[in-house]
Amino acid sequence: MTGQGLFLTFEGIDGSGKSTQARRLAEFLRAQGREVVLTREPGGSPGAEEIRRLVLEGDPDRWSAETEILLFTAARRDHLERTIEPALDAGKVVICDRFADSTRMYQGLSRGDLRGLVDRLHALMIKREPDLTLLIDMDPDTGLSRAKGRQGSEERFEDFGPDLQRRMRAGFLALANEFSDRFRVIDGGRDMDSVAADVTDIVMQALR
Amino acid sequence: MTGQGLFLTFEGIDGSGKSTQARRLAEFLRAQGREVVLTREPGGSPGAEEIRRLVLEGDPDRWSAETEILLFTAARRDHLERTIEPALDAGKVVICDRFADSTRMYQGLSRGDLRGLVDRLHALMIKREPDLTLLIDMDPDTGLSRAKGRQGSEERFEDFGPDLQRRMRAGFLALANEFSDRFRVIDGGRDMDSVAADVTDIVMQALR
Repeated sequence: MTGQGLFLTFEGIDGSGKSTQARRLAEFLRAQGREVVLTREPGGSPGAEEIRRLVLEGDPDRWSAETEILLFTAARRDHLERTIEPALDAGKVVICDRFADSTRMYQGLSRGDLRGLVDRLHALMIKREPDLTLLIDMDPDTGLSRAKGRQGSEERFEDFGPDLQRRMRAGFLALANEFSDRFRVIDGGRDMDSVAADVTDIVMQALR
Repeated sequence: MTGQGLFLTFEGIDGSGKSTQARRLAEFLRAQGREVVLTREPGGSPGAEEIRRLVLEGDPDRWSAETEILLFTAARRDHLERTIEPALDAGKVVICDRFADSTRMYQGLSRGDLRGLVDRLHALMIKREPDLTLLIDMDPDTGLSRAKGRQGSEERFEDFGPDLQRRMRAGFLALANEFSDRFRVIDGGRDMDSVAADVTDIVMQALR
């Protein structure tokens, strides 16, 4: 079958559990016989993964906010062309861990007020929005202690601290309000099974 | 002395001799006691050089035209912030081998008609134009045989062939007409010393 698939994104602060939920949803849908592409940003295609490494490793001041936004947009464009759009054109469900909303928040909020620039660049070079965005909302203190439990060299964005995480949470909730047609807010402070049950309910409705 | 320096760029097709002329001009101005920063695009700052490697090495179809334009713009933004603007603010002469005009030609012309996109991205993320652009104009057949005489792994743009080089030459001349306030066209088909004499004449006038 060829046709338009469904483009789902997960958003939320670090440690909100969205990556786990994205993986669980992919498993659930595959068990239902659906063709699923599970991907993530930044990255998600060979070229975009190379750009990801360039952005996330090294000194936090390595790139200005504006250069960083350009690099993320280049990675997103590659990801869209090589991974997301071919899968959607083949009628698959694409589940993406972070997409443009994360850039609106992280670069648009945390590194000077660049939301306007992020939006103009998106309108020029990306255009596409997800069909459905699942915001896993969570208290930043809980999220931060979860994120710190992990290891890795890509720590730039997890070093932001609790104050910024609180602004991010508020920012994501405001974004959910701004794009209320495609956003669904899920309480991520509960046990994982309850969160997963909400996720599958919402997605199965969208797939009906 | 602190003040506004002079931002000079060299443009032209491959093999036109512009890199040699840029180097000779830098030597000439330094001998006159001027502080000169000689740089090039893509590249020109540590971050931009890393992006340059990502763009220029590997399969020619590795990146779409749109992704390539975004990567070049990211590299240019870094180059501008870290190398060009600090030097101009310190009153230095900046000589740059290729700048935004090359993107207008190479990406704007050769890979689909993306000139409009290149211009909108420039207006959003770069803004700055050179004070003076020296176009070393040359017959593409002469230029191509010179370029082929060199070696290197960064051959993507030199594999374009004579037809495209002819369109490039015409495109650069049209650009010189469009931005006639800052462009000067120099006949690059003569011996190097005659070309260099024209270059220094024009630049000394601009510095007066």
